[in-house]
Amino acid sequence: MSFLTTTGLSRGKVHQLLDLADSFVEVLGRTVPKVPALRGKTVALMFFENSTRTRMSFEKAAKALSADTMNFAARSSSLSKGESLRDTALTVRAMGPHCLVVRHRATGAPWRVAEWTGLPVINAGDGAHQHPTQAMLDALTLRQHFGNVEGLRIAIVGDIRHSRVARSNVALLTTLGAEVTLVAPITLLPEAVDGWPVRTASGLDEVLAEMDVIYLLRIQTERGGGEVFPSVSEYVSRFGLTRQRAREMKEGAVVLHPGPMNRGVEIAPMVADGPSSLVTQQVSNGLAIRMAILFDLLSGDEA
Amino acid sequence: MSFLTTTGLSRGKVHQLLDLADSFVEVLGRTVPKVPALRGKTVALMFFENSTRTRMSFEKAAKALSADTMNFAARSSSLSKGESLRDTALTVRAMGPHCLVVRHRATGAPWRVAEWTGLPVINAGDGAHQHPTQAMLDALTLRQHFGNVEGLRIAIVGDIRHSRVARSNVALLTTLGAEVTLVAPITLLPEAVDGWPVRTASGLDEVLAEMDVIYLLRIQTERGGGEVFPSVSEYVSRFGLTRQRAREMKEGAVVLHPGPMNRGVEIAPMVADGPSSLVTQQVSNGLAIRMAILFDLLSGDEA
Amino acid sequence: MSFLTTTGLSRGKVHQLLDLADSFVEVLGRTVPKVPALRGKTVALMFFENSTRTRMSFEKAAKALSADTMNFAARSSSLSKGESLRDTALTVRAMGPHCLVVRHRATGAPWRVAEWTGLPVINAGDGAHQHPTQAMLDALTLRQHFGNVEGLRIAIVGDIRHSRVARSNVALLTTLGAEVTLVAPITLLPEAVDGWPVRTASGLDEVLAEMDVIYLLRIQTERGGGEVFPSVSEYVSRFGLTRQRAREMKEGAVVLHPGPMNRGVEIAPMVADGPSSLVTQQVSNGLAIRMAILFDLLSGDEA
Repeated sequence: MSFLTTTGLSRGKVHQLLDLADSFVEVLGRTVPKVPALRGKTVALMFFENSTRTRMSFEKAAKALSADTMNFAARSSSLSKGESLRDTALTVRAMGPHCLVVRHRATGAPWRVAEWTGLPVINAGDGAHQHPTQAMLDALTLRQHFGNVEGLRIAIVGDIRHSRVARSNVALLTTLGAEVTLVAPITLLPEAVDGWPVRTASGLDEVLAEMDVIYLLRIQTERGGGEVFPSVSEYVSRFGLTRQRAREMKEGAVVLHPGPMNRGVEIAPMVADGPSSLVTQQVSNGLAIRMAILFDLLSGDEA
Repeated sequence: MSFLTTTGLSRGKVHQLLDLADSFVEVLGRTVPKVPALRGKTVALMFFENSTRTRMSFEKAAKALSADTMNFAARSSSLSKGESLRDTALTVRAMGPHCLVVRHRATGAPWRVAEWTGLPVINAGDGAHQHPTQAMLDALTLRQHFGNVEGLRIAIVGDIRHSRVARSNVALLTTLGAEVTLVAPITLLPEAVDGWPVRTASGLDEVLAEMDVIYLLRIQTERGGGEVFPSVSEYVSRFGLTRQRAREMKEGAVVLHPGPMNRGVEIAPMVADGPSSLVTQQVSNGLAIRMAILFDLLSGDEA
Repeated sequence: MSFLTTTGLSRGKVHQLLDLADSFVEVLGRTVPKVPALRGKTVALMFFENSTRTRMSFEKAAKALSADTMNFAARSSSLSKGESLRDTALTVRAMGPHCLVVRHRATGAPWRVAEWTGLPVINAGDGAHQHPTQAMLDALTLRQHFGNVEGLRIAIVGDIRHSRVARSNVALLTTLGAEVTLVAPITLLPEAVDGWPVRTASGLDEVLAEMDVIYLLRIQTERGGGEVFPSVSEYVSRFGLTRQRAREMKEGAVVLHPGPMNRGVEIAPMVADGPSSLVTQQVSNGLAIRMAILFDLLSGDEA
């Protein structure tokens, strides 16, 4: 009834949602890119962390289905007066939304909100834990490009330890039959990585030539030069997808990035704009997959 | 033509609006909780103080009537460039809204805006003066629960002196025939309380057993321990609705709170979530009463 | 395909847009002030500088044409994480808007965004360079009042050097055949003013009696008393439109101001509210001209 994590999603369910998303890609290409599927429904956007990209994507997806949105702006809210998350959630529920989209810095917050409210909740990112709609749009992008995700060799590169994007993608891509390799300095791998269904590598050059997909994570340069890696240039020298490295990619391999990109750090500008980059398709597919998930959660109410 | 204060509202007018709100409660329970009553109308939300709860409620109420909204965000506005409130109001009027919803920290600001613009204005809270839609939703909640407000014994507990919620409720509830008792430390009673149609009490235990309704105000703990009361624990010991006190409430008595709640201060968590609490109904009724007031102000334009 | 500057606009194109705007003035006066002309279109509002007035005007204009809007809030955006303007623009484009409205402190930013995205872009203000929709609404206001802009004698008074409003108006009003005089202290004239098709004057009294239009710019008093003019009172004594000066205006002359006004600085309160002031008509006309420009850019897509 909610969409909280990619862990435990069945392959069948994923492909059903991706099929639905493909049909919404067609809707989004129409002259009037809108359907009345969710007219009268209201989606509450509860973003307790700053976000433009993801919030706009959900808002546009809701409107493309003719749903209304309610914007809960955490900064100007009662939370600054000390209200608990639970009371905030119950207050928003009392205003009658049919679905909540929740982003929160605390791991598990969307699950709690779902329990407290009894409403369908979509996790739009909780701490370093899960960001399942990001992984779904990535899978949609790969399935569109390659026809199938099964058997793809995918490197996820960067700060895996602090990345909800990585966690959601590892679970989803392995469910779909991809072989995932995590490429990161040891300090940026999660402690429990031994239990993950992945291989690891300590430099991009080790794996570059065999990969079908290079998935680059954003490096938070504001942290750089400190605890987790020695310096930005040191990082780039081992993990950055430079022009030189891009030339050594396997023929037909593609590059993904969840955005926002640090050009010149994890990705060279020429690579970001090059023919192997699927970055803008990822953004467009974000709309379609969020439409699919909203439709899946909300369209059955009357039945 | 405006809705600015509960002072001077006739009992007949109040019940007419509450009846209308009851009909909108029915609308809000439909599969498509929307009516086209105000299609083509625009409601401008002018919140000069932070608010999520009240702003969202007005926005949802407007949309449920198919009106459009315009959001005036005070923080990013010309006001920070020194524009006067009057020029801001005239500028917003020139953009063609049919109604203004105004929250402002200055007492009387919504009246000035109504004079300057000639438009219907709804007071969404002015300083410590009035918050009439809050009082109306409280009255709606009590009328739904008890069938009638007349004769109810109602304690309003907390910082009466600085509370626009208390001022609006005293006027409205006494008009409807309730007996109101203000329960507060002397420092938190208004100076002119002798002229108010109420009794006062200096501790909750004095009146608890006779009251049909305990209306708890939010205590601003960020002020606490200072000028107005000695400490939070001192406040709780005399004015907090603890679990022990809740057991001594009259059979069938209910608890109201305008939110956001300070759990563990003015209200114990178990009481907030207990069967006597009408807090979430208050929020839901906020939508219905704001729909009623918007409809009352705007639906007759064509006639 | 975009609307970026008033420089180079032909007189014919301007009058075509003003005619269209006049027809939207009629629409805005209807009981239901809305037309379905742009149903299914989405306008993305990308304001990288604070704005309420202009953003609200574009948003209302879009809605009056039944377009949807997407709000890109720069403050809570990826830009604060260091994303480039180009990547932000490409990300927003990937979400499928049909048109971008861009305000940015950097001269030329809307041109770059237009190149990068290939979408129609409306310049809502770039640095001290251009604010073409402001000039268009000013021209609309003058054409409505005088019947024709040709031959009008217009003084633009104030900080010309830092004013995008002045630059856009000089180009547009001279194209339409007005005679423009810039009235400013030498320190507030642009360095290249010799090449502009205008006269200059160093005090308002020199030109007051001959002018049909006094266009007052906002003086940023927060800068005043510093580098650019000696003090606010010194400024008022030579450039302020005081009550005394207003009496010496030519019979039938009018006053314009782009807002927000500094009452008592560049304009006396009695003048701002007097019969010669067209300030609120300017705001209303802002809606109509933005509807005209949006309609002009977007309505032909299907053809």
